Amino acid sequence: MDLGRLSLNQITLNSLGLPEAVAACERHEVGAIAVWRDKIAAVGLDRAVDLVRSAGLHVSSVCRGGMFTDPAADPAAVREDNRRAVDEAAALRADSLVLVCGPLLDHDLAGARARVQDGITELLPYARDHGVRLAIEPLHPMMISRRSVISTLAQALDLSDALDGEVGVIVDAYHVWWDPDLETQLARAGARIAGYHVSDWLPGTADLLLDRGMMGDGLIDLPRLSALVADAGYRGPVEVEILSSRWWAEDPDDTVRTLRKRFEEFV
Amino acid sequence: MDLGRLSLNQITLNSLGLPEAVAACERHEVGAIAVWRDKIAAVGLDRAVDLVRSAGLHVSSVCRGGMFTDPAADPAAVREDNRRAVDEAAALRADSLVLVCGPLLDHDLAGARARVQDGITELLPYARDHGVRLAIEPLHPMMISRRSVISTLAQALDLSDALDGEVGVIVDAYHVWWDPDLETQLARAGARIAGYHVSDWLPGTADLLLDRGMMGDGLIDLPRLSALVADAGYRGPVEVEILSSRWWAEDPDDTVRTLRKRFEEFV
Repeated sequence: MDLGRLSLNQITLNSLGLPEAVAACERHEVGAIAVWRDKIAAVGLDRAVDLVRSAGLHVSSVCRGGMFTDPAADPAAVREDNRRAVDEAAALRADSLVLVCGPLLDHDLAGARARVQDGITELLPYARDHGVRLAIEPLHPMMISRRSVISTLAQALDLSDALDGEVGVIVDAYHVWWDPDLETQLARAGARIAGYHVSDWLPGTADLLLDRGMMGDGLIDLPRLSALVADAGYRGPVEVEILSSRWWAEDPDDTVRTLRKRFEEFV
Repeated sequence: MDLGRLSLNQITLNSLGLPEAVAACERHEVGAIAVWRDKIAAVGLDRAVDLVRSAGLHVSSVCRGGMFTDPAADPAAVREDNRRAVDEAAALRADSLVLVCGPLLDHDLAGARARVQDGITELLPYARDHGVRLAIEPLHPMMISRRSVISTLAQALDLSDALDGEVGVIVDAYHVWWDPDLETQLARAGARIAGYHVSDWLPGTADLLLDRGMMGDGLIDLPRLSALVADAGYRGPVEVEILSSRWWAEDPDDTVRTLRKRFEEFV
């Protein structure tokens, strides 16, 4: 894919703070970044905004809002945290706020999914008022007890339907590539695709969370997926998001050099 | 669930050969067993048949046929191996031969899935002639590069539809519990449910293959799933199938005592 569409998801260089990640984007001519909230918190929102603006970086997304599922959580605290996430996405002029909806913590899967819907319903007017687009990211089913009870694109789109179609979805190759229903659901998503993330599924995947592969090292047919996402109408930034203890141990400049090459060749 | 429906899937006591597993069933009054082919091979088919018949054990399934996806495999060898699997299931009078359809080994997911359909199509007349019911087991999407490109019940049932509905499906709680479409697909499956397997999904699942939990130790609402499977019409044996390095290190008698208790209480 054309490097003009590349966005560096900050988790790919997890050892760096926001200033260093922004500097890496400048050094390697990457025009967009996806920012994580813990990295914003480490420098403060005002400084985060200054950093990305001074560098002329586009912010493809803020990661993340959500985490609606804990029945023991204080609803007011969850609401407040999500509103702060919206504030940050607004200040950074991010294309969207990614919603990682929350894991299953008890035996009530239907209840957890209902809490997700309630949480987004409540957040939506606040996001609208602040000009922030919410985007549900379905996560791989193996993440159900760690991150999200929203496991498929169909399910995310059903949620969006229930909210009058206003909420977008994130298509992350790693999370959705296996889905036999993928082609149908991408076509259904259409203009609701608010972001596209790439990495790769390694044949010998050894860890559920931190063993994502660099594009080209795994089994995902990324050119085909990119074509389907394009057919659905998405023309925005494409985030490289690699959660990987192996890549996190590399020199960040080497990682960016590699991902730029792989982005051109395999995405 | 009533212990009269309990079947011991042999992999749960993986350290034991077939004679010892059969003896464990007798010692603990378990009336059915699911037999793995490597354990049959270790004693020979005639002796395997003698063992289960002498013990009066019902064989709920033989695990496994399938593995259709390797583009480099010799088709004749794959066909022959699957016919031997049918022969073994017939000799053991198993309720079904479980099909683990094979992993993705390259970038061509659609091609791999087509090979699965071709493989089953070719095997079906042989199975019919030998009175063996084939049953597709959809495996958790995280198993796509290790065991199977068939990841959901919907997909297994679509395959069955394409084969005139003659092929059954295995409902394994571990593989399907996360699926937002589960209730719909179980109702659709109806009389095609050829087996029901139970274990549990541990909250801190640390390994993709060998970290299944004992029923009651995880997050799956097994009573609800059992009710849905019963509503769909399935009344047969219920296999306890726990692939777990933790349980494999336990004394097999302790494991069977525990799984009997948990089966009554949590399934």
